[in-house]
Amino acid sequence: MSNRKISVCLSPALIQYYNLENTIAVVIDVFRATSSICYGLSNGAQAIIPVSEIEACSAYADRGYLLAAEREGKAVEGFDFGNSPFSYTAEKVKGKTIVLTTTNGTRAIRLCEGADDIVAGSFGNLSVLSNWLRGLPQDVLFVCAGWKNHPNLEDTVFAGAVIDNIRDESSELDDSAWIAAKLHAEGRGDLLSFLAKAQHAQRMKQLDVTKDIAFSLTPDLSPVIPILRGEKLVVLEH
Amino acid sequence: MSNRKISVCLSPALIQYYNLENTIAVVIDVFRATSSICYGLSNGAQAIIPVSEIEACSAYADRGYLLAAEREGKAVEGFDFGNSPFSYTAEKVKGKTIVLTTTNGTRAIRLCEGADDIVAGSFGNLSVLSNWLRGLPQDVLFVCAGWKNHPNLEDTVFAGAVIDNIRDESSELDDSAWIAAKLHAEGRGDLLSFLAKAQHAQRMKQLDVTKDIAFSLTPDLSPVIPILRGEKLVVLEH
Repeated sequence: MSNRKISVCLSPALIQYYNLENTIAVVIDVFRATSSICYGLSNGAQAIIPVSEIEACSAYADRGYLLAAEREGKAVEGFDFGNSPFSYTAEKVKGKTIVLTTTNGTRAIRLCEGADDIVAGSFGNLSVLSNWLRGLPQDVLFVCAGWKNHPNLEDTVFAGAVIDNIRDESSELDDSAWIAAKLHAEGRGDLLSFLAKAQHAQRMKQLDVTKDIAFSLTPDLSPVIPILRGEKLVVLEH
Repeated sequence: MSNRKISVCLSPALIQYYNLENTIAVVIDVFRATSSICYGLSNGAQAIIPVSEIEACSAYADRGYLLAAEREGKAVEGFDFGNSPFSYTAEKVKGKTIVLTTTNGTRAIRLCEGADDIVAGSFGNLSVLSNWLRGLPQDVLFVCAGWKNHPNLEDTVFAGAVIDNIRDESSELDDSAWIAAKLHAEGRGDLLSFLAKAQHAQRMKQLDVTKDIAFSLTPDLSPVIPILRGEKLVVLEH
């Protein structure tokens, strides 16, 4: 058996250069799409449908779905909500299907087509995701949503957190995976202040959503693995 | 005056997402294109013409130029040499013009068109490059050549080395620049073993060019700044 490859794609714009065959793709958008997806599904949402464009999201109107759209960090007018995790409470989402479009995260999910499985990762499901990945034979590719095709700190550091949990001596890390693990090793003691330097955290502070930052960096609040089945993210039964 | 932006483009495939206006682009290909370019020019080469394709390089035959071509880490057959810095000694290059094509580095140089100036960076010119950049008003974009559009460790760490030299309290680092500076801060004590984990260093070990690695990581052996003037990289007079 060959060594397991663990790679990190630091921007959705680079995904074409990575191998998706025999690979589990873990999509990461810590601030805030995948944090909200994990939280919503852990709060009993039936499914979340990630779509790339606002128009595609609107097309689901009148079908009894909740429609969620975020652009530039804000909820888009005319939609039920944006991508703040606090919109995804049990009260609001239990039993519902949510159609979600975001600046970076939902597009990244769509770009992973061809992987054996596509799952969503966030600090909210860090342990359950790590345990599941550890037991699988496939290679793992972490796909960071970044910000408008620029790599970002928080998604990279989260990739590093999972890598630290799943790597062993035989793992083959690519340079980006190695960088991610190094960053996480340095920041793990105090993620909140380590990531305060991140551009997107700065952007969110201006939007007055600092409570979203703290929430999104708290481990294991949403212990489910969202997995793509057809067009829907649902809770993986495992 | 607005704060100076310092950004890192971790892969040539991402350059379209970065602003090049009012910006100095520093192209980095530590293993080995920009290390060799700096060394060649410091050894008296008249100019180095970076071209993207092997065919473009061949087109310069019979004009008295030295032709250098590297692919997959090796010199291409039929060319005068590849991109090992040890091919760029004074004995071989003094007074000559070299036409060079490499897997990653020369293409990256060509992609920076539109910047105020395009210069080549390597550990060989770390101090002189840092001092020059410190005195300029423009924004700085470090463009890492990477490996086949994947980000790599050595180019990122070198960007971090320059950033550590030029940043001040008013500098605005993007997330990639911040990551690069963090990595350099961690690796600076022993770059050789820090970068031994890099995939490309591993690749070069297999090619038996470990002396090229050590050479490429030694600071200030080539204290010149190669700058693009028309199609040619020449020594910047400053």
